[in-house]
Formats: sequence, C-alpha cells, structure tokens
Amino acid sequence: MRDVLPEEAAVRDRAAATILAVYRAHGFVRIETPMVESLALLTRSEGGENEKLIFKILKRGEKLAAAGRPEDLADLGLRFDLTVPLARYYAHNHARLPQPLKAIQIGPVWRAERPQHGRYRQFTQCDIDILGTGSEVAEIELILATAEALLALGLDGLTVRINDRRILAAVAEHCRFAPTRVESVFIALDKLDKLGPAGVLAELAAGGHASAAVDALRGLLLDGPAAAGRPEDLRRALGDRPEAAVWEGLARIIGTVGDAAGERFRIVFDPTLVRGMGYYTGPIFEVQQAERPWSIAGGGRYDRMIGRLLGREVPATGFSIGFERVVGLLMERPPAEANGQRRVALVLDEDSPHLGRVLAEAREMRRRGDLVLVELRARKLGRQLQDLEARGFARIGVVAADGSLDWRSGG
Amino acid sequence: MRDVLPEEAAVRDRAAATILAVYRAHGFVRIETPMVESLALLTRSEGGENEKLIFKILKRGEKLAAAGRPEDLADLGLRFDLTVPLARYYAHNHARLPQPLKAIQIGPVWRAERPQHGRYRQFTQCDIDILGTGSEVAEIELILATAEALLALGLDGLTVRINDRRILAAVAEHCRFAPTRVESVFIALDKLDKLGPAGVLAELAAGGHASAAVDALRGLLLDGPAAAGRPEDLRRALGDRPEAAVWEGLARIIGTVGDAAGERFRIVFDPTLVRGMGYYTGPIFEVQQAERPWSIAGGGRYDRMIGRLLGREVPATGFSIGFERVVGLLMERPPAEANGQRRVALVLDEDSPHLGRVLAEAREMRRRGDLVLVELRARKLGRQLQDLEARGFARIGVVAADGSLDWRSGG
Repeated sequence: MRDVLPEEAAVRDRAAATILAVYRAHGFVRIETPMVESLALLTRSEGGENEKLIFKILKRGEKLAAAGRPEDLADLGLRFDLTVPLARYYAHNHARLPQPLKAIQIGPVWRAERPQHGRYRQFTQCDIDILGTGSEVAEIELILATAEALLALGLDGLTVRINDRRILAAVAEHCRFAPTRVESVFIALDKLDKLGPAGVLAELAAGGHASAAVDALRGLLLDGPAAAGRPEDLRRALGDRPEAAVWEGLARIIGTVGDAAGERFRIVFDPTLVRGMGYYTGPIFEVQQAERPWSIAGGGRYDRMIGRLLGREVPATGFSIGFERVVGLLMERPPAEANGQRRVALVLDEDSPHLGRVLAEAREMRRRGDLVLVELRARKLGRQLQDLEARGFARIGVVAADGSLDWRSGG
Repeated sequence: MRDVLPEEAAVRDRAAATILAVYRAHGFVRIETPMVESLALLTRSEGGENEKLIFKILKRGEKLAAAGRPEDLADLGLRFDLTVPLARYYAHNHARLPQPLKAIQIGPVWRAERPQHGRYRQFTQCDIDILGTGSEVAEIELILATAEALLALGLDGLTVRINDRRILAAVAEHCRFAPTRVESVFIALDKLDKLGPAGVLAELAAGGHASAAVDALRGLLLDGPAAAGRPEDLRRALGDRPEAAVWEGLARIIGTVGDAAGERFRIVFDPTLVRGMGYYTGPIFEVQQAERPWSIAGGGRYDRMIGRLLGREVPATGFSIGFERVVGLLMERPPAEANGQRRVALVLDEDSPHLGRVLAEAREMRRRGDLVLVELRARKLGRQLQDLEARGFARIGVVAADGSLDWRSGG
C-alpha cells in the first residue's frame, strides 16, 4: 500500500470524475458497498486465487477469546474485488433497486500479495455492471460506455478484444482435451501474450495433455482461423458447437459496437482471449491501448453468481476499468491545464493588519472562479515565489505594508 | 456497515464534489493515504478511546503461524481517523510536499463499535489540515474554507463555536481542580449539551472533585462570564493565565472570521467547548447548524502529534466535516435538480433491428449534455414507463416497429 502525493491525487480525482460523468450520462447509477464483508461471503465466491489473498480481520472481544482453532480467529475480510460484494448487495436490496440495475462502483480493493513494481496491496477498481438483462444489448452498452469513458480521458488507439466462454469450451471439446483438465488449457492459453504460441504449446505438452489435442488447438487457434480473427472461420471449423445463438449474439455485439465506434476505436474477435475468473459464462472482453501488451479494462457475462446468493437466476454482465493502469497512463503525460481555472497566490506578513481585506479579495476572486491560495510570507521570499511559480501559480501578489498588492508574476 | 442505495450515493457524490471544489479553490490539495496502517502506528497515537476500537488484521502465512501470544496475531489495522495517517504521511513525504501543506482528505474510517441508530462501523470523514503554520491565520483559513463549503451545500444558520485548550487548562487551574484529574473535569464539561449545567455539576461532585473547585467552575463558566460569551470577561476573571498571546490570537480569529462571515454565519466564543481528543494544544472549534444540538464539523490545533513521528516540531491544525451527518441533513430535503441535465429514456425491443440507430441518437443526445438511458422493453410496458417516470425520466421515447420514436412523456 502506498501514499498518493497531491499531483497524482489530482489526476485520480479528475479521472474518476470523468469516468463517473460518462457512466451517469449512459443511465448508470452509482452504488456503494462496505469495504469489509463477512469472510463467509468472500470465501464462498468463485474468486479463485483471489480468495487466498484476503486480508482477514480478527474477531473482537469475547468472540476472539472464545475462538479456539486458528481458522476461527477472523470473521470479516477486506473485499478483493467489487463483483462479489455487488452480488451480495443485489441479493439484499433488489426490491429497492431499479430493474434492470445498471450499477457503477468505484472504490478500493485489497489483495495480500507480495508487493511488486507497480502493483500494490490496495488498489482502486472501477466497474459497471448490468444485472437482470440476458440480452447481448447489455454487453453492447457496457462496451460502448466503457470505450466512451476511456476516450473522454483522452486515451486513443483503443482495441476491444472479444470472445465467448462457450466458444472456448467448444474449442476444448473439439480438440478432445480431457474434460476434467479443460481449466488448465485455458490457464496456458491465457499466457499467450506473455509466452507466445510456442510457449503456450510447450506448457500444454509439459502439462501432460494429449499431443493430438495440443496439435488440434494449434491448428484451430494458433496458426489457424484465429489469425484472421473472423468468427465465421472458427464457426465452420467447430461445426455445431456452440449453438447458433452464441455466434449470432457475438456477431451482433461486434457489428453494433463496430458501427458505433466508427474510426474512434476498434472491436475484434479474439478466440484466444480467456480472462482468468472462473465465474464467466458468456461473452468476455478486454480493452488494450495502442501497442501496450496489457489490457486496461476487462469484463464479461457471469449469469450464475447472483443466483447462488439470491436463490433465483439473475443474468449479469460487467466491465471493469483498470483504474491504476489508466492513472499510470495519464501520469505519463504533461500535466493537464486546470480547466482554465486561474491560480492566484496572495502572500502577506503573519501579523499583517490587512488580513481581512486580503481574505475578502480572495473570496471575490474565488466567486469569479479562480483558485486563490493565501500564504504567509516566508523568511526567504524569493525562494517562496519560485516555489509558488513551480506549483503553477501564474499570478502572485505580495501584500505591501500599505495593503496594496505588488504583483510579482503574471500580473 | 451498510449498503448505500443509488439515491443516497448521488447525494454523497454531489456533496463530496462540492466540498472538494470549495477546498481546492482555497488552495488546498487532496492527498490519499492507505486505509490500512500498521498497528504499531495506530496504537501509539493519542487517539484515546478510538484505539480500543481498531479493526485488527490477522498476520498472513508464516508470520501468523509463528505468532505465539494472542496480541501477536495482528500486525495491521483499519484506520480509525484521518489525522493519525496524515501525521505518518507528512513524516514520510514532507520533502516532496508543499510547505506549508494545506491538505484535503476524504475517505472511510472504521471503528469496531456496537452499531447504533445512525452510527455505522464504517463512515466517511472529510478533513482539511494545515501543517507547518503556527500562526492563527491557519485557523482563520480553516474556519472560512469549512464554512464556505457548508454554505455551498446549502446549509444555513451556521454557528462556529470556538475555545482554546490553554484557556480550559487555565480554568481548571484557577478553580484549583487536582492537576492529575483535570482530564475528568473536561470529560464532564464535554457533556454540557447532553446533561445541562446541573448534570455536569452533579457528575463532577459524584466524581469526588473538591466542592470548592466545582463551585468555582460553576461561578466561572456555568452561570458566570461564559453566559455572555465574551472572552474579555473570562480573561479578567482568570487573571494572568493563559498568556496574553492566547487571548489575542483568539480575538483575531473571532474578529477576522466574523468580518468575513457578515450575515452569512456566526462565530461565538464558547469557553465550555472541550472536544474529546487528547492531542489538541490550542484553539478548538465546532460548527452547529440551526437549532440542532450536535455539531456537523469540528477541529483544532494539534502542534505536538507530527513532531512525535518526525522528530522535529511541526505546528498543525485541522477541521473535519462530519460527512455522514451532513449527508443526513441533505437527504432530508427534496431531491436536488440534476443540474438541469435532461433525463431521457429510450425503450426498444430486445431484437430490434434499429438498435444501432437508437444508440447513435443516444450518443448525440449525450454529446449535447443529456443523460440517456437505453432500456429493453419489459413485458409490461405501462408499468415500465411508470417506473421510469418515477425515477425522474421526464422524456421517454418508445421505438416503434418502423424505427420511429413514439414520445410517451414530456415529448
């Protein structure tokens, strides 16, 4: 975990405000869940590896004293994503929520990982989800809203990659991988960006998969129809699985999003796209920016998770912006103009009899839209004025003994 | 802890954005600290009772296995306020921060209290602090910025109450309370709003304080000069303690803030104001709204806390808005106009061939500033249209079979 210095905090706030405004304009509503949930909830989700990374909170008082075994010491945990809490939130509150629910969530999540360069144990996620719509129109809206938000941040060269979990399952079946070991095929395939095709095939072979199956996968995805990125080719190769509706839904998403995108961003079919989480059931998607190899947003359909908590099926699909990565991209740029807001510093002596008048003047300037900093004169005035200029104060007035303003800069 | 429904989330976001904009216009900069800090830091602060309410996080892996005694099980904790993390943040980062630092913090804090009506174990605090200025100009700026923020939220009838810890100490000394038991005098006095003067005097008597001291306190504060609220009267009664500079600083704060306030809000001297935290060293202040008995903001000077972490003295003073209470006040009002943003809903069939055109139209309307919700037609259209109207969609268009828009409401 880490401290955020003022420059980055300003970028983070602007990014969050921009994303929130775009999502709200698309009719999404913000919701908030507590950052702490019961361990029982967090550990019965399909969070996969993330469940092992939960920060657990010690029981309090008598309950702690009564806890016998080590696994009874904790009853609460810090959330590791925003999807598991959303499922609980919807199950608890659905009668008071709009149907379908189009929800925005922005907030911190925690994972007890060994800290790595650029990865922290507390980080911000920024999700939109549509709960209660099984139609692919929901995916279309999520993808368009997310792309618009990223474009509004000034990120260009965006490519949306899309696949469907049911196509991946059909590929594994078609290649005749052992049905019990399909998950490990996906895990290997998920490393394609990192390992390249040869690396993925080597990992599969080393993992003891039938060589005929590995060969079939190569023919189908790694130097076969996938290279062209045309769903029709893969559909022809796979035959009658998955069902036609899966292909038609995918075609509608790609066609409609592509039309709306025009020249502004791209959407491409990528049958090698896997995404890690076990809970996805349908279309899955990611966004990459320019030539960067990692994604800056990802999501997909997870139709069964809410049902397990609520006791009835609720179709659901979501898209998550990698907020930390996006902030990282924004921090690489020259600092943004502060919306044309003029930055004024007024410097006066600690015991100045003119304080009241200076404060009244500052208030009047703020009323007109300026940012006005009132500072006490430092021992070294020259150094102080330099510092203020470096901090972006284009207009600096020093209050003279008679109360008049001596404009030192940008006056 | 609790879920926040969409209506309240919108109010919270607007409140936070308004406060943040006012503070930024006053030259404050936002900073962020992790929500988790080391237990060592949290428990060596002067957080008083709050230290007993820390949610403690279990050690992980081998460290947990190696922990012998129960008090060794946890190494991290959820922050219980924003002031202790600020002190650590400043000690770590001061070389990279503006001097003096005028910091904004908005974020959640946690206390493991038994949940009560309207009080939750996770709640939001919203603080500004000035670090590195010993002058009372810092208090003046904090009070003005906080009052402007509350006024910008539409809260009126504001009264700022102000006192000084050094005056309280002099009062206790003047009344000849036992020096070792002064803290319990303040704790009783702090309940004046709740118990009334008679209740406070009864608590002091029951607490075994000398009756001469209790009588002196009554004469001095409870039916003496305090009733008039004029510092001069109390100063005359107390004699030469505290030193003149304390009174002069207080007079400058009250005079300057009063002039800036005009008719918009009030500032009054209240020698019975205590504020709970042990770390205050100078002026302390609170804001009340209209006739409500509880404060909606509070703060004061804490010159010694940072020094204990940094190893050299850093004067500091802060003001915290009770964000949850403010949101509670805002929620009592009729919902705000959504900044004149037009709310449009477009309703179409799930398999409509006009989806692309409808999305393009929605995008164009959003470009002009509208909030546009695209919804699939529900089985019961009449009910759906009613729900949308109830959610504030003044303009609702249903897409007909030929693709034309049938405006049902506000068209």
